[in-house]
Amino acid sequence: MKVDVLFYPEKLKNVNDKAVVVLDVLRATTTIAAALANGAEKIYPVASIKEAFSLKKKIPDALLGGERGGIKVPGFDLGNSPLEYQNIAGKTVILSSTNGTKTLKKVASAQKLLAGGIANAQAVALYLLKLELDVIFMPSGTDFQFSLEDFAGAGYIISLLAKQKKLELTDRAFVSLKIAQNTKPLDILTRSFHGQRLINLGFKADVEFCAKLNSLEVVPEGRVVEGRLIIENSRFLR
Amino acid sequence: MKVDVLFYPEKLKNVNDKAVVVLDVLRATTTIAAALANGAEKIYPVASIKEAFSLKKKIPDALLGGERGGIKVPGFDLGNSPLEYQNIAGKTVILSSTNGTKTLKKVASAQKLLAGGIANAQAVALYLLKLELDVIFMPSGTDFQFSLEDFAGAGYIISLLAKQKKLELTDRAFVSLKIAQNTKPLDILTRSFHGQRLINLGFKADVEFCAKLNSLEVVPEGRVVEGRLIIENSRFLR
Repeated sequence: MKVDVLFYPEKLKNVNDKAVVVLDVLRATTTIAAALANGAEKIYPVASIKEAFSLKKKIPDALLGGERGGIKVPGFDLGNSPLEYQNIAGKTVILSSTNGTKTLKKVASAQKLLAGGIANAQAVALYLLKLELDVIFMPSGTDFQFSLEDFAGAGYIISLLAKQKKLELTDRAFVSLKIAQNTKPLDILTRSFHGQRLINLGFKADVEFCAKLNSLEVVPEGRVVEGRLIIENSRFLR
Repeated sequence: MKVDVLFYPEKLKNVNDKAVVVLDVLRATTTIAAALANGAEKIYPVASIKEAFSLKKKIPDALLGGERGGIKVPGFDLGNSPLEYQNIAGKTVILSSTNGTKTLKKVASAQKLLAGGIANAQAVALYLLKLELDVIFMPSGTDFQFSLEDFAGAGYIISLLAKQKKLELTDRAFVSLKIAQNTKPLDILTRSFHGQRLINLGFKADVEFCAKLNSLEVVPEGRVVEGRLIIENSRFLR
């Protein structure tokens, strides 16, 4: 099993035989995992606010969720905090965030597209072991800068894979694993540029939630239906 | 003191108030350090083989050194192995390597341009502490891929700085420091993509030499004279 970890989000070609795990630990992919763990039916990740409102017209029952600059978009039902997605059973969510939802759409052609975080590291690792595909971990970045929390988040998942299987790690994946093996998730998230920004915006509880290793037993999995990406709870763990 | 570590070589603007440390641990910047430690007078890093031969016509006494694909360039006096640069006292070297010498030329406008490696980590760290400039560590990469050995090499220098001074580390610099704190240089160099390639080419002794922490007490420093970059032994340690 070959494993690579990217430093920055990028549009990937030739991934139709690979599993791609998109990480936006702070906070979109953690929020997606929390929403699905709490029974949300499906998530539509959309890149723009305009696209969110336009899709809402077609699915009037859907909730609008997301942020810009960390703050809930005016007119939306929910922000991008995983703590907001509690009473959500059976709901459809249209989600637009600054980085994560855009990154998910870049790699919709992957054989398997998963959304990972520190919170669902174990669940994602178990699914990847079952899939036996080569894996690329793709950070969402923070406004296209390097995001430490996504890079280290990949490492926590890799450390779980490494316990079960011999892995071929690229040099980048090796660095990601080493940082995860030698640093605690909450230390990573609170020292990271993005974590600091969220704490300054008043989202300390979110940062703590996103750092809770293996707290969500759910694997968000993407599929494209009629040209549109949908994220659902993988059947694997159900 | 702000410290950043890049993942890839890039042309930097606005570095005329910064120290830039270029690393090509395997092997150009280690070779430059070894040559100067053994008394070489100066090094001219040149990007192309054509430029090397052209400069040799102007400085007939200079030795031509360098490699392509790891192997000595036909017609050159020396390859890119630090072990070859022993009897070199008083000599001028024109050096062209695949990655390192090109990278040095990209950042010739830095306030201070240094060439660093694992071998001269301590010497570079002492000089940086004296300079008190913000620092950018720039890897040379391996054919523009990520080079683990350069990224970790920066970390060994940062770990020495961190013992003496409070540092403001970017997230990338934090990762670089962590990998250096938790992995031995020889383990890094032998597992890295580039290290593996050199070992396969028969350069195991070079890889071992380049992994010897603090074995060379020399700081190669660049300055531009009449539009041409020259690397000399910094006066700081002499």
